[in-house]
Amino acid sequence: MKQSTFLVPTLRDIPSDADVISHQLMLRSGMIRQSASGVYTFLPLGWKVLRKVEEIVREEMDRSGAQEMLMPSIQPSDLWKESGRWEAYGPELMRFKDRHDREFALGPTHEEVITSIVKDDIRSYKELPMTLYQIQTKFRDERRPRFGVLRGREFLMKDAYSFDHDFEGLDKSYQTMYDAYNRIFSRLNLNFRAVIADSGAMGGKDTHEFMVLSNVGEDTIAYSDESDFAANIEIAPVKVNYDKSADQPEEMQEIETPDQRTIQEVSTFLNVMPEKCIKSLLFIVDEEPVLLLVRGDHEANDIKLKHVLDAENVELADETQTKNILKTSPGFIGPVNIPAEVKVIADHAVSYMVNAVCGANKEKYHLKNVNPDRDFRPNLYEDLRNIQEGDPSPDGRGTVRFKEGIEVGHVFKLGTKYSEALGAQYLNDQGKSKPIVMGSYGIGVSRTVAAIIEEHHDENGIVWPQNVAPFHIHLIAINIKQEAQRDLAEQLYEKFLTEGREVLFDDRPERAGVKFKDADLIGIPLRIQIGKRAEEGIVEVKERKTGELQEVHVDELSAVISKYQL
Amino acid sequence: MKQSTFLVPTLRDIPSDADVISHQLMLRSGMIRQSASGVYTFLPLGWKVLRKVEEIVREEMDRSGAQEMLMPSIQPSDLWKESGRWEAYGPELMRFKDRHDREFALGPTHEEVITSIVKDDIRSYKELPMTLYQIQTKFRDERRPRFGVLRGREFLMKDAYSFDHDFEGLDKSYQTMYDAYNRIFSRLNLNFRAVIADSGAMGGKDTHEFMVLSNVGEDTIAYSDESDFAANIEIAPVKVNYDKSADQPEEMQEIETPDQRTIQEVSTFLNVMPEKCIKSLLFIVDEEPVLLLVRGDHEANDIKLKHVLDAENVELADETQTKNILKTSPGFIGPVNIPAEVKVIADHAVSYMVNAVCGANKEKYHLKNVNPDRDFRPNLYEDLRNIQEGDPSPDGRGTVRFKEGIEVGHVFKLGTKYSEALGAQYLNDQGKSKPIVMGSYGIGVSRTVAAIIEEHHDENGIVWPQNVAPFHIHLIAINIKQEAQRDLAEQLYEKFLTEGREVLFDDRPERAGVKFKDADLIGIPLRIQIGKRAEEGIVEVKERKTGELQEVHVDELSAVISKYQL
Repeated sequence: MKQSTFLVPTLRDIPSDADVISHQLMLRSGMIRQSASGVYTFLPLGWKVLRKVEEIVREEMDRSGAQEMLMPSIQPSDLWKESGRWEAYGPELMRFKDRHDREFALGPTHEEVITSIVKDDIRSYKELPMTLYQIQTKFRDERRPRFGVLRGREFLMKDAYSFDHDFEGLDKSYQTMYDAYNRIFSRLNLNFRAVIADSGAMGGKDTHEFMVLSNVGEDTIAYSDESDFAANIEIAPVKVNYDKSADQPEEMQEIETPDQRTIQEVSTFLNVMPEKCIKSLLFIVDEEPVLLLVRGDHEANDIKLKHVLDAENVELADETQTKNILKTSPGFIGPVNIPAEVKVIADHAVSYMVNAVCGANKEKYHLKNVNPDRDFRPNLYEDLRNIQEGDPSPDGRGTVRFKEGIEVGHVFKLGTKYSEALGAQYLNDQGKSKPIVMGSYGIGVSRTVAAIIEEHHDENGIVWPQNVAPFHIHLIAINIKQEAQRDLAEQLYEKFLTEGREVLFDDRPERAGVKFKDADLIGIPLRIQIGKRAEEGIVEVKERKTGELQEVHVDELSAVISKYQL
Repeated sequence: MKQSTFLVPTLRDIPSDADVISHQLMLRSGMIRQSASGVYTFLPLGWKVLRKVEEIVREEMDRSGAQEMLMPSIQPSDLWKESGRWEAYGPELMRFKDRHDREFALGPTHEEVITSIVKDDIRSYKELPMTLYQIQTKFRDERRPRFGVLRGREFLMKDAYSFDHDFEGLDKSYQTMYDAYNRIFSRLNLNFRAVIADSGAMGGKDTHEFMVLSNVGEDTIAYSDESDFAANIEIAPVKVNYDKSADQPEEMQEIETPDQRTIQEVSTFLNVMPEKCIKSLLFIVDEEPVLLLVRGDHEANDIKLKHVLDAENVELADETQTKNILKTSPGFIGPVNIPAEVKVIADHAVSYMVNAVCGANKEKYHLKNVNPDRDFRPNLYEDLRNIQEGDPSPDGRGTVRFKEGIEVGHVFKLGTKYSEALGAQYLNDQGKSKPIVMGSYGIGVSRTVAAIIEEHHDENGIVWPQNVAPFHIHLIAINIKQEAQRDLAEQLYEKFLTEGREVLFDDRPERAGVKFKDADLIGIPLRIQIGKRAEEGIVEVKERKTGELQEVHVDELSAVISKYQL
């Protein structure tokens, strides 16, 4: 492709509305342009990368045995009403009426449509298992579109749906997709983890999010620096062997703490470390009061509390509730001498504390030298805190670190939610009707392009990995008006095309500085610069990633290029 | 692909809601399913064909130098208001509001979006010419969706846009696309013509429709049986050398024709051929009365009348207007003795008539032995009738035939309509701002799939041409429960896969009849049937198109397959 007539409008300045690096670089390198908030055009350079990502996804889906198809974006409201999502999906679902005033949704996902197809066209157990997928445009009216194509309102997605006889079959289909996703994101050169996600609301079935570890993102991921463990911090289990202090228990004392309510205030005032304090939080759990205790340097985790108590509803008590139950305000509550009806649930770490500080259940007083199991006795010790950086990895290998995560994929066991709602049944080998057991598997294709850039760039621009690069070679005639340079460049361009190489030829009559800046920005892995030594047949080969530059005679060029594994 | 778990739900019966053969066959062969009126899912088999068509389109677009990109479906109303199409497009434009009550259209085409991009990102004459394209889903709220994917409301389209310095450049870009379209539709095995379409409303610029000649369609195409001439019958020029009758002009006579008003009635009543009658039609052309004359066996063409008179508005006079102007009702009007203010315009054929019959401008009377240029003198003889089957082709080669046409492509010179409306200018080599000159080029990709089927089927099903067939080989184990058959089939299946052949393996435990019927319906070009002689290594090879069947030893199979050019 000749750059002079290739639409790749690079920008020198960082666009003011782009907060994250991938958004900035996609705009600056001429990959995308915005049409409306969260709605983007992929210009030719961006489109080439999107296609390469799409092809990798397609290859691995096909390899996994999934069948490609194409469902429409226009979805009748009836289907969504049958599944109950017409209301439940809320304002994210884009809706419109046709010329006959019939209501439709623009598909944000296709569970309803695929289930209605399968309902009509799959009859027998002999036709199962089956996994269907499509790579198709999706629509979601995000409340706050941002980060360019990382959170857009129209985007390219791969969505797959598996259909099985039973949950055992679903487990297999799920694993097949899980494995395919691992292959896909590995081939896409991403530092990702399959993160166990909270599945409480969906009935405890398995679900994993594939998260790219990044500096931007909307979730915080706890991951091991040595293994492949990763989880959303909200549900990551804590497995720590705490040491019990060698201190001898001392006599419990009441101390006046007139204005000290938080752990920070109390520990400073009393000159003790936060880990010597007990953080006490009063919750209303399914209408019963529960006092949750964690160590002062830890964060309480109410999702874990909910799971531990198998509760429906967990809410922090407000000031009034606290006063009614414990006769004092939240800053002064603690586990000692509380009414018998208040359940006390403590994190494991609390049981190892000696001579701790906690609220006295008396306005403006705390207690010191409090010792668990002497001065109070929790109903239960459990894992009830958030995991922290520095904790040992729950799988026993390595140490926990935190990163932001970009969700690029999601695998989900749907079970029979949709097949039951829409009546998708099959006849089993006994001739009995059974609901088809389903799974759902998504990959954000356009988002993944941005995720790759988040991981593969430097201060000068994008640094494309080979297999998703828009071109493999950037051929630059430094001074196109100089005949020897132009001739050699044209000659190499033809040669590369003949060899089937993907080459962008910068044939523009621009200054060298402009060309190099654009080349860095666009980030094609290998650059071949034709300059002053063209007459001798000497060109420069520069690797984008390392900046490594060498002079090469054209006769040696193929060998050198091969070294870079093109 | 093993058919047992491939989603290809064939139907025995002809679906009652499918009027045309392609729609019937796409439903019956399990290629598509309807989600809503005019909204279809492409199931895996249909998707494979759609992809192949898409790839052929892409290859030829790339070969023509066009650059692929991807624009969004969501288009802000502002852009459409700037171009004036927000109102003009009418109810075909699907519209919706987002959560902030902003108005959007679902793109039926992308002139506005591409022009707004080019406006911002093309600056200099050095960046032109350029042609950009995308293969993308389009939305049109058709008043009457029908014929399956031939006229849908959501469909896959290739749309391209060219950008040039001037109209001369546009001519070249247009020709490049025109040539690419010819290559595409040839490769797609279609009997098509590039038809000159009426471009009056757009200011007389060139436009061609690529029409597949068919038995269904919404336009009638006049084409030559010997050359590539083709035109919509409404604008096809008539070039006929009429013979003048050898009869001597006789004396004009008035005859009573009490109830005879139409040519049919009059010619029967008077026992003369329709071609001896003059058909007289009174039009109001830009408020002036014009009497149009054509031979009784011809059809008057008001589009030609409009062009000939360079008129804005042409309407047939109603009964009242006719009585006011000619003092009689429409069934009895004629060109003899009419008021001087009524212009008479006649088709060429009229001037060759001798002793003709026409209305007498007197209630219940006609005239016979009327002779042009003796009894009346038209202001003008011109081409004013529709072309007819049997006419010589206007290009002098062959005879005109009629066919219905399916419009699969459209190339159009837009000129500066959009660039001026949206302000897309470039700086020319003199440093002056000039509007970019544009062309627009569409191909209905999903519609083309149906057009191929209209042309390639027989009474048993689809007969796919090789290069768009969903698979190349249909491998059928006639009795999969029979071990020798199953083993040989499995063995050949593996072999074909290894050789990279696209093969569908019917491994279902169905009866032979069911398998053969499905195979005919699906229409894969070559069928390999493994039956009773499996133990001897003998299989049957059957060509779908010819029905030709031969027994072949497996050792000879590759050679035989090669003969069929797989």
